[in-house]
Amino acid sequence: MTRRVAVVSDASFYVGPNLCRLLAAGGHDLVVGDPAAGLVDELAALGAAVEAVEGVRDLAEPGSAERLIQAAVERFGRIDSATAFTGRIVVGRFLRSNVDDLLTVLVGCVEAPYFFLRAVVPLLVDQGEGQVLVFTSAAGARPTPGAPLYSSARAGANMLVRNVADEVAAKGVQVNAIGTNFMDFPEFLKANRVTDEESRAKVEAMVPMGRLGTLDELAHFAMPFVDGTSRFTTGQFVAFAGGWA
Amino acid sequence: MTRRVAVVSDASFYVGPNLCRLLAAGGHDLVVGDPAAGLVDELAALGAAVEAVEGVRDLAEPGSAERLIQAAVERFGRIDSATAFTGRIVVGRFLRSNVDDLLTVLVGCVEAPYFFLRAVVPLLVDQGEGQVLVFTSAAGARPTPGAPLYSSARAGANMLVRNVADEVAAKGVQVNAIGTNFMDFPEFLKANRVTDEESRAKVEAMVPMGRLGTLDELAHFAMPFVDGTSRFTTGQFVAFAGGWA
Repeated sequence: MTRRVAVVSDASFYVGPNLCRLLAAGGHDLVVGDPAAGLVDELAALGAAVEAVEGVRDLAEPGSAERLIQAAVERFGRIDSATAFTGRIVVGRFLRSNVDDLLTVLVGCVEAPYFFLRAVVPLLVDQGEGQVLVFTSAAGARPTPGAPLYSSARAGANMLVRNVADEVAAKGVQVNAIGTNFMDFPEFLKANRVTDEESRAKVEAMVPMGRLGTLDELAHFAMPFVDGTSRFTTGQFVAFAGGWA
Repeated sequence: MTRRVAVVSDASFYVGPNLCRLLAAGGHDLVVGDPAAGLVDELAALGAAVEAVEGVRDLAEPGSAERLIQAAVERFGRIDSATAFTGRIVVGRFLRSNVDDLLTVLVGCVEAPYFFLRAVVPLLVDQGEGQVLVFTSAAGARPTPGAPLYSSARAGANMLVRNVADEVAAKGVQVNAIGTNFMDFPEFLKANRVTDEESRAKVEAMVPMGRLGTLDELAHFAMPFVDGTSRFTTGQFVAFAGGWA
């Protein structure tokens, strides 16, 4: 029995490592960008053949997506699912912004998924099947106080995913997006200046569900979009943000 | 180790039986409305304690939802997730419709989920946790030629789910909707006059992905909304319709 092949663009942090573990345990071989220390051994112990590609986690960097996809093709000859992590944030009010801020979020939030989709979708179209999942932000689903340019760029990315899905649905390829916010991981906590219980409570109070989301539950939520069990939904955006969007 | 308790309002057809099987295999006891022949034995063989409630599959019927929820409370004392199937379709153009057509779709598509949500959500709020999934239709996400009143009523139901989710997010309760179309099961095929390969091809041609969806892949997609692995997404509507919505 052949194992499925899954690409995970960034296995260094955020939900990347968790998703890799679930995929490996669920019968996938993996192509991972910039894996966290020890992760490759862990995945191998779960039965996965793993190809690690270094220096590709910034998908806005021209060539990164191509290197990742090329590595997958050379090692395994095909790709069943491909997951991308994208985004660069700029905070601050619109009235105090400048056009460089805008360019920063457009490159990080729109060009990055564009490069990834442009690299992987043609291959999946040729295969006649395949699943793409792009992690974006729930900020793209509603105006976001304090991050208006970021919110706008994310909205563009969410609609890009839907447009690409429309264009290739007839080829059997699925393209979906999950947009998160208020996830409990070190980079989010740092960006929101969470250093103690009090500062954490302030951030949690912004979430309707009153807590932060865990990477493990996000990985479980993402699985049906990439594990091949469910092949009939495409062009969807789902917010994973505790009711905030 | 305690098994989780899942309510499935209609286990007679559509995705109900498939979802019950996945839930039973995944460590759930079950409360099922109007189970298909042989299903209860099948679920018991998968390790589930099963409470069957007859005559409740039409949730628009006052009292049905209460009976189902009451049976769950009496048998198991709590509910971890509750899934509802709702909807009654009226086809035909707006310009040829009458107000009885409108009342039919409002009762079947809006009152039915209202009754279900009204019956189960207070209990979950009291528990301080719980997951609700309402199956609606992808027709609620876009104007639908040939079924304008149905599409409108479904849109109302999808927004009802989002409003209820907002109201109870702070209580730890999740409420989401999946809206399907073009699923491969006898009632859909009959309603669309699919009797042979040719009539099937005509219906499939309306789906961007060029095929009908299977109940098994829909059940897999639904699992993270009801199986307790993922508790941080709420107020979402997802279309499961091969790219049609």
